[in-house]
Order: sequence, then structure tokens, then C-alpha cells
Amino acid sequence: MSQYRDTAAGSIGVETVGASVKVAGWVARRRDHGGVAFVDVRDASGLVQVVADPDEIDTVADLRMEFCVSVTGEVRPRPDGTTNPDLPTGMIEIGAQSIEILSPAEALPFMLDDRVEVDERVRLEYRYLDLRRSTMAANLAARSKATAAIRRTLEDLGFLEVETPTLVASTPEGARDMLVPSRLREGHFYALPQSPQLFKQLLMISGVERYFQIARCYRDEDLRSDRQLEFTQLDLEGSFWGQDEVLDAIEQTLVAATEAVRGVRLIEPFPRFTWQEVMDRYGTDKPDIRFGMEVVDLVELFAESDFGVFKGALESGGVIRGINTGRREFPRSRADELTEVAKANGAKGLVWMVVNDDRTLRSPVAKFLNEEEITGIIDRLEGQPGDVLLLVADRWKTAVTVLGTLRAMLGRPDDHDQLAFLWVTDFPMFEEEDDGSITFSHHPFTTPQDVDVMATDPEKALSKAYDAVLNGVELGSGSVRIHDPALQRRVFEILGIDAETAERMFGWFLRALRYGPPPHAGFAFGIDRLVMILQNVESIREVIPFPKTQSGMDPLTGSPTIVEDTQLAELGLTLRPETRTRLEEP
Amino acid sequence: MSQYRDTAAGSIGVETVGASVKVAGWVARRRDHGGVAFVDVRDASGLVQVVADPDEIDTVADLRMEFCVSVTGEVRPRPDGTTNPDLPTGMIEIGAQSIEILSPAEALPFMLDDRVEVDERVRLEYRYLDLRRSTMAANLAARSKATAAIRRTLEDLGFLEVETPTLVASTPEGARDMLVPSRLREGHFYALPQSPQLFKQLLMISGVERYFQIARCYRDEDLRSDRQLEFTQLDLEGSFWGQDEVLDAIEQTLVAATEAVRGVRLIEPFPRFTWQEVMDRYGTDKPDIRFGMEVVDLVELFAESDFGVFKGALESGGVIRGINTGRREFPRSRADELTEVAKANGAKGLVWMVVNDDRTLRSPVAKFLNEEEITGIIDRLEGQPGDVLLLVADRWKTAVTVLGTLRAMLGRPDDHDQLAFLWVTDFPMFEEEDDGSITFSHHPFTTPQDVDVMATDPEKALSKAYDAVLNGVELGSGSVRIHDPALQRRVFEILGIDAETAERMFGWFLRALRYGPPPHAGFAFGIDRLVMILQNVESIREVIPFPKTQSGMDPLTGSPTIVEDTQLAELGLTLRPETRTRLEEP
Repeated sequence: MSQYRDTAAGSIGVETVGASVKVAGWVARRRDHGGVAFVDVRDASGLVQVVADPDEIDTVADLRMEFCVSVTGEVRPRPDGTTNPDLPTGMIEIGAQSIEILSPAEALPFMLDDRVEVDERVRLEYRYLDLRRSTMAANLAARSKATAAIRRTLEDLGFLEVETPTLVASTPEGARDMLVPSRLREGHFYALPQSPQLFKQLLMISGVERYFQIARCYRDEDLRSDRQLEFTQLDLEGSFWGQDEVLDAIEQTLVAATEAVRGVRLIEPFPRFTWQEVMDRYGTDKPDIRFGMEVVDLVELFAESDFGVFKGALESGGVIRGINTGRREFPRSRADELTEVAKANGAKGLVWMVVNDDRTLRSPVAKFLNEEEITGIIDRLEGQPGDVLLLVADRWKTAVTVLGTLRAMLGRPDDHDQLAFLWVTDFPMFEEEDDGSITFSHHPFTTPQDVDVMATDPEKALSKAYDAVLNGVELGSGSVRIHDPALQRRVFEILGIDAETAERMFGWFLRALRYGPPPHAGFAFGIDRLVMILQNVESIREVIPFPKTQSGMDPLTGSPTIVEDTQLAELGLTLRPETRTRLEEP
Repeated sequence: MSQYRDTAAGSIGVETVGASVKVAGWVARRRDHGGVAFVDVRDASGLVQVVADPDEIDTVADLRMEFCVSVTGEVRPRPDGTTNPDLPTGMIEIGAQSIEILSPAEALPFMLDDRVEVDERVRLEYRYLDLRRSTMAANLAARSKATAAIRRTLEDLGFLEVETPTLVASTPEGARDMLVPSRLREGHFYALPQSPQLFKQLLMISGVERYFQIARCYRDEDLRSDRQLEFTQLDLEGSFWGQDEVLDAIEQTLVAATEAVRGVRLIEPFPRFTWQEVMDRYGTDKPDIRFGMEVVDLVELFAESDFGVFKGALESGGVIRGINTGRREFPRSRADELTEVAKANGAKGLVWMVVNDDRTLRSPVAKFLNEEEITGIIDRLEGQPGDVLLLVADRWKTAVTVLGTLRAMLGRPDDHDQLAFLWVTDFPMFEEEDDGSITFSHHPFTTPQDVDVMATDPEKALSKAYDAVLNGVELGSGSVRIHDPALQRRVFEILGIDAETAERMFGWFLRALRYGPPPHAGFAFGIDRLVMILQNVESIREVIPFPKTQSGMDPLTGSPTIVEDTQLAELGLTLRPETRTRLEEP
């Protein structure tokens, strides 16, 4: 294989006994026993035990953890009683004839054992050591396998991979674009793309018909726990396509990625739900359907109720919904805690009930309910003794959202051993805010199912937009795009974007729509999130080779850094006086 | 396939006659003849002729060039005498039953016929139309095929594709980094990577062993004819590897890409030359070996010459070299022109000679040469009557470089029908400037072949650096990297980079070298350039979907653009007063 080795360390089995081999890798462990050194040498393929006599080989005395070495020796069976059936190379060892130290290592900042918890900042500072740990090496490998499988699937389906620019035009309103100052045109700026959305639509207008790209995208968000300034998405678009064709292609990529990483073949097609259905049943547009605990409609049961809370909700057009969270300890403190969650999510309160052994209810509101209502609740929520039932009486959106949040808190499994992919379709065009007002919830190229409804009855208007969800996490979203310039004009009008504003924001794209754009539809999903779930880890930072911290810092390289004034001057820029003062503070 | 079509337009052959089909695509041509419209409909698969009666189908009257349509009809044989054997669908036509206009097109800014020359700026402004032309569609497809083939090759060789960050640390001295201001840390900046060099070396230290990435890179250069601010390279690195392993892997990717795009299988291994050899024979480190016209050493012949120019050159340690440019017209004006080229490239002059029928020489210097010398020149340069011989007497570097330049001007084929890949190895550590001084010509992690020679005799020091060349174009370069911190320190010392400067520029990387870095080597080549040559086009802009102009502008989107002051303020920045004034000038 090279001057440093001829054999992969992890590949040596009993069939190799007697052969002379050369392996290269890192010292993963070293023990001394009976005057002999036992050195585990690790390379990307695995681990092999090297036995060396310090009296015969000078370098053995120097070997410490994570030294990089090349070892020549003979493969021999391990003595009886010292074999390790858990290790692929556990039946053999290498009797070293020579050990060359390729490079030494200083004392490590942390142990590379997967079981040792290390502060994430330290891990990121020494990412090159962190990545030597077997879990992290496996994460990198899984990511590579997943993207390779996705690409092969789409290539086989006739898609072209096309690279779109990453130095693009900043949209005037896009205050959160990351900017790149131009040197050749002082005072002008490129933006880094939040997604290749408009370029992939241009590719459809260009006649490409089947486009994909595994694309780097940028979002200058305040970093929440699971966001990064730069992230990677599979981006895809098809001409003469509608929703079904997109969902089918994306499903094939997800099936291939899952098979490549997990070795399991998912059942197709994935379940499809309308947005209305998932909101009613799971109280969220990204439901985790690995468990039940579905939201139940209790309006009919309480239609005649005298209980003021229920009565009031119904009278003001609200609903009463409940979930059965199952048998669990439920002290008063827990009840208070969940009530706080409900309130934080906009509900006026939370009704809790514990089913007694005699099928009565322990609940602060039990006294307001008649026997028929109590039996009705237990029946409809399929209550068993000890089950904790939670009810919310409120505006529909608030009621289902609060219950959806509680359901996820109380029911969601801790790990991702099971994978539940699903589609959510028929999203509304507008989203209802907490105050009951509505805002547009898509990009303005999303096709309405009925533009007249959009104009006259916006809160009822549905879109041709759809999401992919895995284990309660939104993987990605897409839509059938508007290709008819007249419809596009009408949608802008309804959204209150006048012609001048539309021209300023998207003029170059609207011009392209004048030249025979085909009907088209597409999708994008996050590679980071997908691999995170497939690898059963808690954060996307575990599957990104060199991530930034939540404040956008890289503890390894120190980026972002300050730069020379002369360098800024070349770009026509200077620091604001306030900023300069702040930088110069001790 | 979808609601808009069930058949690819370009796939319809005589075996389909009688079937009802639905195709969708663009109107590529429309002729009216005998009261009937003949409409060529083009999709990504090809072209089919649709015959429609305007009296029966209302929409026919409206159809114009590049309208997007969906056509339902019956496949029927073309009438005798109207078949077109050059077209895959040339034996049939579709008798239209209905034509739906999916979207109209305004009058085109230029004809989409490949044979029509269009100003590049206009092509870029309407790139979505330009990309509909068959040559451009083929370029996009070729690029996709090439990258897919490269990826599959490396995946099969066990490489992991790993994504390195594109928001990185700016090196203090790197004045030409493109910068991205940070919002979360006002006054601080990320840089866009010029290459993933240090991150891929970190991946080796991380134990990845086989890394590749098709990586977006950024260079803020004054754009020459064939550069872009952003470009794409195959980036590769291997641990426990030396030069041979890298060259073998890269060769396999180039063979696969060539086979995917050109359908030809290259002969391996590619020829290898040392830098010294290509400089001596071709006068360049990126030789085009599709033709001969090699540089010949004439020192011995003129060792005793009385001709002042030759004598002077030899006496001051220079050389005399020549090329035979073959039989060609050679008026005095041409001679003057080539002499100017020689001078522009640093030579004091150019000696030209035309071989006469009687094997004498027509040349201004003929009178200074004796008969033996004249015969000797003709012999050594294998001169035939009419051949034009060019000689330079100068410093070695100047002589070979000038002749190499003239050789390329006069000999290089206009097209890339033939492909001549080759390797150049054993590059010097330092480059000789025109004034005879030397400068370091690699990144400082390049391994010297002998560090002692580097210290004592720098102009003779060779490196473990190598280039891939195709048809006279440098595709990419690589090297065996330094993995020994002690050697790295010594190299910095020789380069005059003191410890403090090294720490400021590369401190975080040098720290990583302390933790058991493996020996490693790698390479990177430009995807744009490779596909450009494979597709036989003149500029990388032809194989980049949405390129910028030479001044870094995008005529399509108008980027780079000015941005609001408030947006800059959020980043702690403001325009310099001079720049603002300039922007506000009419």
C-alpha cells in the first residue's frame, strides 16, 4: 500500500498467522506486562495488538498515547486465555520486529475513549483529536456514505448535479444575508446564498429538467442549539413535475441514505398526512409518530358543559382537546410544571386529571364535571387507572399546539433507534400568529391551491407546499412553484408586494419567467439533520467535521478574527468608531 | 411521468408509431406549410416534430419560439421525402390532438441556434436562455458526468468525502482573502477559503486517512481571462502516502472523468517528467506534448563561435537553445513580431533562420556563422527547406522560457480533440525570478527532498511537489506534506519566517502537528479547467452554469450590489467617505 504499511490494522485475522506484515497507525493503548509492551495500534480500519520487547526495540521505551508509528512484525496467534472475541483482530497479535516512530504526540488534552465526557469547547479546539474517537470517525463515515447514496440515487434517476454560485446578489430586504465585500467594485457586496432557490428555478427555465446539488447554504441567524452559520442541504428540482414526482424522488434518496447508513430498507411509500390532520392529531406540523398519545377532540362531549372554562372556550369559538399521557407519577409539582409549559405556549391554563382505580378522576376540575362527562373523558381518551390526562380548552391553534408540545415532552423516545419518516402536505398559505393575525409562511413563489380563495379567504387558503419529517424533526420542505407570470403577479398583489417592490427584490428572476418557464416543483432537506438522526446523536455539531460554536466561533482556528485596516480600506470599508472602541477595550 | 407528459420527446422512434403520446417542452422552430403548422418541440432528451392544424387546435395560432407547451397526439410515420435521418426522431412526427400552452415567451434577445454568435455579456444576462442551447446543455451534462465519475472512483477506493468549512480564519498576511463580516462578533471577519489545504491536513491528523471533496474555493484575484472569484476543485489527501499513491489515485479519477465525458479510455500510467526535463525540452512547466517542436541544446555547437551574441551569452554562463517551428511563411514582419514576443518575455533578442533549398540559411546572422555551424544547426534542428528555426542565447531560464512561449504560439493545436495528460515532478523549492533572484514557490508545508540542500544551496533544492498537466494547461498540483514538526520549524527558518510570525499565521495548525501527525500527501485539480478541455471549449465560463464576468459582475442578477447602511452598521462597518462619494457620483 505504501512505504509505511502493507496491511490494514483492523483486517488481520487468523488466516494471516505466520505472515510478515507492516502496519501504520496510532498508539491507542500501551500496557507493560512481564517485561513486554502490549501496544494497541489503531488505523482507520480498526485496531491490532502489537507485542514488543523493549530490550530488542529501542523505540518501545518512548511510545506514548497517540504517537504515530509504523510497525513491522509477524502475525501470530494470541496465547490461550488472552484472546478477545469482541475484537475482529482479537485472535492474533503482531510480534514486532521493528517500530518506527513517524511522529510523536504531546500529552493529550483529553482521553480519546468514547466513554469519557469532554467539554464541547475543548473537543472543538482539538477537533483533530476528537475526530480520532471511534464515534466521531463513524459519524464522518456515515455522512460520506449518506451523501454518496443520495447522489447515486439521483444520478440513476437522470438528475444532473449543477453547481450554483455562492457569491450572489443580496436581496434589498434580506437583512440577514451574510455579505462579502467586493474589492473590484468598492462599496458593493455579494451575499452568500441562504439556499439556491432562485438559481434552481432558473435552471428549470434553462431546460435542465432534473437538477440536484448538495449545496452549502448560509444563514446569519442567532445560533440556536442546533443551527450553524453554514449548513448543507440536498437541493432538488424537477420540470414538468408536480408534488407526487418530487415526493417519490426524495423518498428514494432517503431510503438509499438510510440503507447506506443503517443497513435497513424502509417501507415505501412514507405515510402522508395533510397539515390539518397532523395538527389535529399531533398538535404540530412535524409530528413524531413513533408513539401514540394522539390529541382527541372533546368538543362534543362538553357541548353542554356547565364548567366555566369549557363553556367559555366553546362560546368564543374555541375547542377542547385532550391527550392521555399514560400511567406515570403525577405529583402536584409536576402538574404545576406542565401548566407553566402550557401557559408559555399561549394557553390560558391546563386541565389535568389522573384516572383513579375506581374510574373516577383526581383533578382540580373533577368537581365541576358530571358523571357522564367523567366517564366520557375516560372513554374517549381510553384512560386506565393511573393514566394522566391533559386537556386544553382554547383557540384551536393554541389547544392543539400546547397539547402537541406536552405530547413531545412526555412521549418522545430518547433515541432514534426507530425511524419514522412521513410527509406533511397541503400547508396553509398563511400562518396564524398567537394574536390570531395571519402572516405569509412560504416564499412568494409557492403555488396556492386556489388563488381566489387566497384573495378572499386567506386563512383558509392552502398551498402546494409539503414537508418531510423524521422522528419529530423537520428534515426539509418544498413546493410546486409558480411558473405563470400572471399568477405570480396576482400572488404578489395579494401579499401586498407592489410591482415596484417586486421588481426591486426579484426583478431579474421575474424577467426570466417571461421566457417560457416550465411547470416545476422541488424540495430541499438538511443533510446535517438527516445524518444526525441516522447516527442517533443529539446535535448536528456531532456530524459536522469542523462546526462553529453557538456564537459562531471556531475554537480551533480562532475565527472570526480581526483584520488590518488596510485590508478593509481595499474593500472601501472602515470599522464604525463604536465598534473600534469596543475592539480596543481590554 | 407526470400530468404534463408521458414520453420524452427525443426518444420517440418508429416502434412507437400508432401510439398516443404526451410530450412537453419548448417550441424550437415553427414553420407553416400548406395550411398546417410544423412545430419542433424540444425537451432535455431531444427534439420531435409536431404537426398541427390551426383550424382544429386554437392554441397553434399563438405558438412562438420558446413557448413552453404540452402536446398530446398520435405518433405517425413522416410522409415519404420528409424524413430526416440526422435526427433520432426523424422518421416520425406527432399528429397533434391538443396543444396546451404551459407558458408563453416574449421575443427572444438572441437566437438559440448554436451557430449564432452572441455577445457574452448578453448571453450571461439571459443565461437561462443561453443554457437552452444544445452546446451549453451538453457542457452542463458533461460537468455532472465528470464529477459523478470522479466521486465514484474515489468512493470505490475507500475515500471519505468530508465537507470542510467555508467560513474560515483569515490569515493575517492573506490580503487577498475574500472576507465575510461577522454579525455576532462585530468587527471580526471570516474568510472564504482559497483551498481546504490546512483542513485537509487536519483531517489526516484526525485519522481520516483517505479524504476527498469537490470543494468550492475563492480567490480575490484581478480576474484574468480564465479565472473566477469562485471555482471548484477536486481536493484529495491520503495518510501514510507518498507521491506514487497520490498520482495513481488522481490518474484514476482523470481516466474515469475522461471516459464518462469522452467515452475514451486513456492509457495509464500518464507520462512523467521531472521539472528539469520539461523545462529543457518544452521551455515550460506545463508542456503541451501533443506536438513536437522540442527545444534543442546548441551550446556545444557554438562553443567556439565568434558570433558576438552567442559568445557573450556563453561567457556569462548562459545557453544557446533553438526550436524548429516547421515550414511556414516567414516575412520580415512576422520575424519582428516574434522578436517582440521574445523581448517581452525577457530575452535580449531572437535569432531567426529560414532553411533555404540549398541548405544554406536566410537569416540576419547567417553572415556571422561559419559553414560548419550552419550545417550543425540544420542537422541538430532537423531542418528541411522552408523550415523556420528560432534560437535564443541567454540565461538558461530565459532561453527555454522564451522558446517555450514561441513553441506554444506556433505549434499548439486549436482544439482539444486529442488529450495529452502528463505529470511534472521534482519541482524546485524556489523559483528563479527574471532578475535571477529566487522566491519560494510553494506553500510552506511542502516537503523538501533534502532540507540541507535547501539551507545551503537553495537554488538547487528540489521539492516533493508535482503537477498534473493536460494539453498545456496546468490542471492542478500537490505535494508530500511536512508532518515532522522539527522539519517544519527548520523550513520556516530557512524561509525566514520567525517563530512568532509562524505562530501568528499558522499557530493553530502547528499545534495540531504536535499530536502524532501521519505522513501524508495530496493533490487538488480544477474541475472547471478539466471539463473545459474535455468539452473542447475556450473558456471555463462555458462550463460554469452561472459565471461572473472578468470584473466579477453577474449581468443576470446584478451582483455585487450596494447595501443599506443599516445592514453594514449591524456588522460594525461603514463605507469609507471616499467610497461613498464615488458611489454617489452620477
